Amino acid sequence: MLWGMEKVLICGGAGFIGANLARRLLAEGCAVTVLDDFYTGRRSNLDGLDVEVLDRDVREPIPGAYDWIFSLACPASPPHYQRDPLFTLTTSIDGIRRVLELAERCGARVLHASTSEVYGDPLVHPQPETYWGHVNTLGIRSCYDEGKRAAEVFALERRRARGTDVRLVRIFNTYGPFMDPKDGRVVSNFILQALRGEPITLYGDGGQTRSFQFVDDLVAGFLAYMRADKAALEAFFAPKGYAIPVLNMGNPGEFTVRQLAEEVLRQIPESKSELVLRPLPGDDPKRRKPDVAWAKACLGWEPRIPLRDGLAKTIAYFRTLA
Amino acid sequence: MLWGMEKVLICGGAGFIGANLARRLLAEGCAVTVLDDFYTGRRSNLDGLDVEVLDRDVREPIPGAYDWIFSLACPASPPHYQRDPLFTLTTSIDGIRRVLELAERCGARVLHASTSEVYGDPLVHPQPETYWGHVNTLGIRSCYDEGKRAAEVFALERRRARGTDVRLVRIFNTYGPFMDPKDGRVVSNFILQALRGEPITLYGDGGQTRSFQFVDDLVAGFLAYMRADKAALEAFFAPKGYAIPVLNMGNPGEFTVRQLAEEVLRQIPESKSELVLRPLPGDDPKRRKPDVAWAKACLGWEPRIPLRDGLAKTIAYFRTLA
Repeated sequence: MLWGMEKVLICGGAGFIGANLARRLLAEGCAVTVLDDFYTGRRSNLDGLDVEVLDRDVREPIPGAYDWIFSLACPASPPHYQRDPLFTLTTSIDGIRRVLELAERCGARVLHASTSEVYGDPLVHPQPETYWGHVNTLGIRSCYDEGKRAAEVFALERRRARGTDVRLVRIFNTYGPFMDPKDGRVVSNFILQALRGEPITLYGDGGQTRSFQFVDDLVAGFLAYMRADKAALEAFFAPKGYAIPVLNMGNPGEFTVRQLAEEVLRQIPESKSELVLRPLPGDDPKRRKPDVAWAKACLGWEPRIPLRDGLAKTIAYFRTLA
Repeated sequence: MLWGMEKVLICGGAGFIGANLARRLLAEGCAVTVLDDFYTGRRSNLDGLDVEVLDRDVREPIPGAYDWIFSLACPASPPHYQRDPLFTLTTSIDGIRRVLELAERCGARVLHASTSEVYGDPLVHPQPETYWGHVNTLGIRSCYDEGKRAAEVFALERRRARGTDVRLVRIFNTYGPFMDPKDGRVVSNFILQALRGEPITLYGDGGQTRSFQFVDDLVAGFLAYMRADKAALEAFFAPKGYAIPVLNMGNPGEFTVRQLAEEVLRQIPESKSELVLRPLPGDDPKRRKPDVAWAKACLGWEPRIPLRDGLAKTIAYFRTLA
């Protein structure tokens, strides 16, 4: 098949990453179907797009036949995934099972969105794919972290048992247009606070670092990963002892939350916002930084868009909402 | 209700621990139902017992009404749980969900068997309940370890959302009568090898340590835990930041695998077996030792049976099989 002719399903396609991915796939010429229950996904993210929409819960059997499936359906920000922890946990665990069943029925290739949260509050820095993580099983984030870890195991074991062509990507902190203004993530919070002239809230002393990946970089990584030959991936991963491909995707550039706030204010010079400090919430990871050497070696992929450029595009998007 | 009058369901009651628990509960006067699919449980473990048997898969909805449910159904030894990793994973994850549904329908109290394997290959020694663990998500043991971790999260979140009276116990290495001779665990392996005069296989240099808990100690802990008042448990755990009770049960006495082999040979003086060394399998945890301070403080429980006494009873059981 020629690239750009694929029939693609994006589970969670009305969410932030899905909406960006859908635009890129449409631009490449793919036929795109979006499955979303609009629990956190937003219909407005699909405005004007020539996509088929399945308004469904990913935990139910999925109809149809596709070449590629992007498995992105799960609440992903703490206020969203903590609102109904059982929903989050079952969406992760039952969602991947329904996706794998569909893939096995129609022979699709699957890219499953895992997360840097499988590393928890890491004791190793930066985090390579080989790091086993440091996750509190009984904490307030465990519905997400452990649900995502269990989903990785389902993918691993279905691939081992049935040869299902499923690939894992552990997504680090990503930002860009179509982020939900209400999802409580640091980039959207800061931009909105700055645009509204409200105080910009830093948790702790603002010295905790984050990697900030612009969404276009991630989407480029998704395409490179999906286009990689199954046998080539196996040749890369099998000697490392992995029975499933797993790649970090994130930007290793390290910024403190305070630096982010300052750059946002620099790009919104009319803002009257000031920085204020608040206590850290429970189990908040202090440091996260991806090691992306495997993605570079395997796919030739690495993030290219500097924070200031990505922020400019994101601020432009949020200005259109105002 | 008077102790000993409870109507009790033991999921996985034909397994090693379940068979010992059933005997103790019957001796206390309880009415006992055993649910087992006999995947690893053995019908002979129930010989002569006045129990109702439900030959069912724990992943399916469970009929009936009980006061207490012991949730023990899962393959628990590496050769068993690695035989069909997807079966293991779904038995853990769907099993706890069916148990919780039943408990919520009939108002039962649940004791769910978690495992020291949630600590993985620990970097902290001994392991308290507060240790977050060190588990390889994509290794050959992850179907068990991550399935058990996810099951803990289901229990936590169902308790938080619905008040379900479920308690977690993390069981460390346990031995005793009714162990499956074929399950590949070190105690049964050594006893069988010694009785048959075969070489006793040590993996690595035999210097890795294990805690060996005699099953009567564990069963005594189960009863103390189930008899504990819900409010009293909450008063113990809530100030620690835990929304669900979780207790280690194991014997902190630390022995090397080599010491175990030597004690077995001492108690089987007629044996002609010799010790032989084999390479360590992948992801084999090197050290495990429970911190049982919480169980002692909360329940007044601690293990009482020394290794030599427990081994004597276990060897006597295996002699009856020969």
